[in-house]
Amino acid sequence: MSRQTDLAYAAELDAHDPLAHFRERFVITDPDLIYMDGNSLGRLPQATVTLAEDLIQHQWGECLIRNWNEGWFTAPERVGAKIAHLIGAEPDEVIVADSTSVNLFKLVVAALRFQHGRSCILTDNLNFPSDLYILQGAIDLLDKQHRLDILPSPDGIHGPETEIHNRLDNQVALLTLSHTVYKSGYIYDMPAITASAHAAGALMLWDLSHSVGSVPVDLHAAQVDLAVGCTYKYLNGGPGAPAFLYIRRDLQDVLRNPIAGWMGQRDLFNFELEYRPTTGLRHFLTGTFPVVSLSLIELGVDLLLEAGLDNLRAKSQRQSEYLINLWEEFLEPLGFTLNTPREADRRGSHVSLGHTEGLRIDQALIHEMNVLPDFRPPDTIRLGIAPIYTSFRDIHTAVMSMQKVVIDRLYEKYPRQAPVVT
Amino acid sequence: MSRQTDLAYAAELDAHDPLAHFRERFVITDPDLIYMDGNSLGRLPQATVTLAEDLIQHQWGECLIRNWNEGWFTAPERVGAKIAHLIGAEPDEVIVADSTSVNLFKLVVAALRFQHGRSCILTDNLNFPSDLYILQGAIDLLDKQHRLDILPSPDGIHGPETEIHNRLDNQVALLTLSHTVYKSGYIYDMPAITASAHAAGALMLWDLSHSVGSVPVDLHAAQVDLAVGCTYKYLNGGPGAPAFLYIRRDLQDVLRNPIAGWMGQRDLFNFELEYRPTTGLRHFLTGTFPVVSLSLIELGVDLLLEAGLDNLRAKSQRQSEYLINLWEEFLEPLGFTLNTPREADRRGSHVSLGHTEGLRIDQALIHEMNVLPDFRPPDTIRLGIAPIYTSFRDIHTAVMSMQKVVIDRLYEKYPRQAPVVT
Repeated sequence: MSRQTDLAYAAELDAHDPLAHFRERFVITDPDLIYMDGNSLGRLPQATVTLAEDLIQHQWGECLIRNWNEGWFTAPERVGAKIAHLIGAEPDEVIVADSTSVNLFKLVVAALRFQHGRSCILTDNLNFPSDLYILQGAIDLLDKQHRLDILPSPDGIHGPETEIHNRLDNQVALLTLSHTVYKSGYIYDMPAITASAHAAGALMLWDLSHSVGSVPVDLHAAQVDLAVGCTYKYLNGGPGAPAFLYIRRDLQDVLRNPIAGWMGQRDLFNFELEYRPTTGLRHFLTGTFPVVSLSLIELGVDLLLEAGLDNLRAKSQRQSEYLINLWEEFLEPLGFTLNTPREADRRGSHVSLGHTEGLRIDQALIHEMNVLPDFRPPDTIRLGIAPIYTSFRDIHTAVMSMQKVVIDRLYEKYPRQAPVVT
Repeated sequence: MSRQTDLAYAAELDAHDPLAHFRERFVITDPDLIYMDGNSLGRLPQATVTLAEDLIQHQWGECLIRNWNEGWFTAPERVGAKIAHLIGAEPDEVIVADSTSVNLFKLVVAALRFQHGRSCILTDNLNFPSDLYILQGAIDLLDKQHRLDILPSPDGIHGPETEIHNRLDNQVALLTLSHTVYKSGYIYDMPAITASAHAAGALMLWDLSHSVGSVPVDLHAAQVDLAVGCTYKYLNGGPGAPAFLYIRRDLQDVLRNPIAGWMGQRDLFNFELEYRPTTGLRHFLTGTFPVVSLSLIELGVDLLLEAGLDNLRAKSQRQSEYLINLWEEFLEPLGFTLNTPREADRRGSHVSLGHTEGLRIDQALIHEMNVLPDFRPPDTIRLGIAPIYTSFRDIHTAVMSMQKVVIDRLYEKYPRQAPVVT
């Protein structure tokens, strides 16, 4: 065994990690739990515990309705402005409310109506399925003459970049892709793809759910039109926390929110019968937003801003490279495939390993080894690296656990079929 | 002064109130605050404080992603089933997620597509403005040939029931109304209106936001098709807590959710590229819901179920009758008008009093008297009675404070214009 694959080496890497101290800023009740699922649900920041108490007991319990004027009303913009710093947007170009899917619906419908006369939405089969369902629903709703082109990935890992460039023509209203692909972790070349969309006259919408907070994104440098993204993954905003949407400033007043509600109304406390959208991004709000879930996002974002996204990305790349080195040494010989791009620059912050017994291995890791990855069919175990709290030791232990599960055939007691989620 | 308008009499009424002890089940940090805004944001249940700690620290902090299978995934149905008991629905006919406005959008669009060939949505000008904006947006989106008929109230207080019955014809696709009107507190005759809609072949959609938890509703008895409602008012679910939607069981699989997302997908963890809606109401979910805000609703609903809705309604009617008696004695002579139906059966759980200086009086009540009502233009002060915690003493103090503000002209230092909400 080479030294670089020892546990002692992992400890050494942790000791020299300038971000290691951020781990203490999170609630970690079980120090033996190896949590490799921060790409699905981020950990709880310590500061958020205190904020939650204040939100419930002081803001709701004591201030009651008065707190709407003490920070609730402006929370969508306030949290949005902080997220804007993570994705290269201006503070007034990002707003938080509703789910990623509802936000996507608003933007897609607005984009299709704006792009009158163009009949195609272009995407790929690596996009998150919910995004595809939203696109299917929007087309079905608006105009059956629209069509959805789902370009296939060449290998299930890399995006069909060449096909996208070739396919863009004057019938494409909107190109929409996941910037970092949920299953393989592939990262699209945002500036090149966006430029290509614009050259064809298409609008570009990026789903940043698996990028934001772990992969630097510069929407302005790429002149991106539209984006959505999730706050409960790398932003550590809490389970199901509302999502953000981005609209480039010059598009904010020409696009129309199809789900027009009173939170987007000018002078909403006049209770007028006619909808008159307010200016700026706020007219893309709809109803009253879930204040508690929305407010809890803020301090997780603060932590990322404090750590610095470039530092986080550098650590994440070191960590995924380290994980892949361990895979080569210990897991590839056991039949695990690398379902993630080998090139560090084209890889997000999770590493996907395939195995014919992937589902059962995943179950054994959870129930026998106290390791929490997640599973994506047909064969992929995703190991999420959240560089703000994932340690090198976590990664080493996860890999050793996967080795043990296979060598000791601990997975054999688990069913080949996924349990039905009820 | 007659005995029935003394403070001592209020204390006597409180002493004989069989629901009085429920007040202790809520967090009340300032015993001198007269909170008359539970129709806008309900108070914090004591039990919810403990639940919030468990949600944040145990469920999120400790269980992390594992808690999706320990209650998060089924929270929309679990909380929905409890709300169903308050509105005369079956447990599988109510689900919680998204805002009232987003839920309304889903139902309205689904109804219009189902009612192919009918061109009109019928409503009234007492409906909550956000509902009207949603209707306007849906028509604009779907088909410009639809039109929205907003029937005017005869007096700004009562619903135009006769006009509605007369106006219903075979062009009306959907009739939608607020069951209890947000401004005047007028209650529509749900069975009669619904029957009239059905006789014309229209679908009936009720917004129950200002009824649920204070006014008994029996959706099944009235054979209602569709409903939405808010959880942060009388249900005490917390600021901006997600809303519910109801679809009668036999319509659940024929209506299509226009915002189709993965939470409504059959076998969602198969991550298929084609949307295949699951059966039952769950396909009206869209994206991942705000777990914390949604979960916090449950214990407020439990309290109402424990108190019993008929008991709550009886107390609410006694209290609003009491308030109106005090108004006659003390406030009518000072220029306050009753902007709420005089008939107790046609009145929800808030009482609206008009005054030419209403806005300034509202400001003086908040800032000088520690009384919190709310104001609705042009002249209406709403006094919300939440029978589960509002005392007769609260009502007496509120009225005496209004009297004092006018007699002592305490309102004069406040501006005639509403402060701009930023």
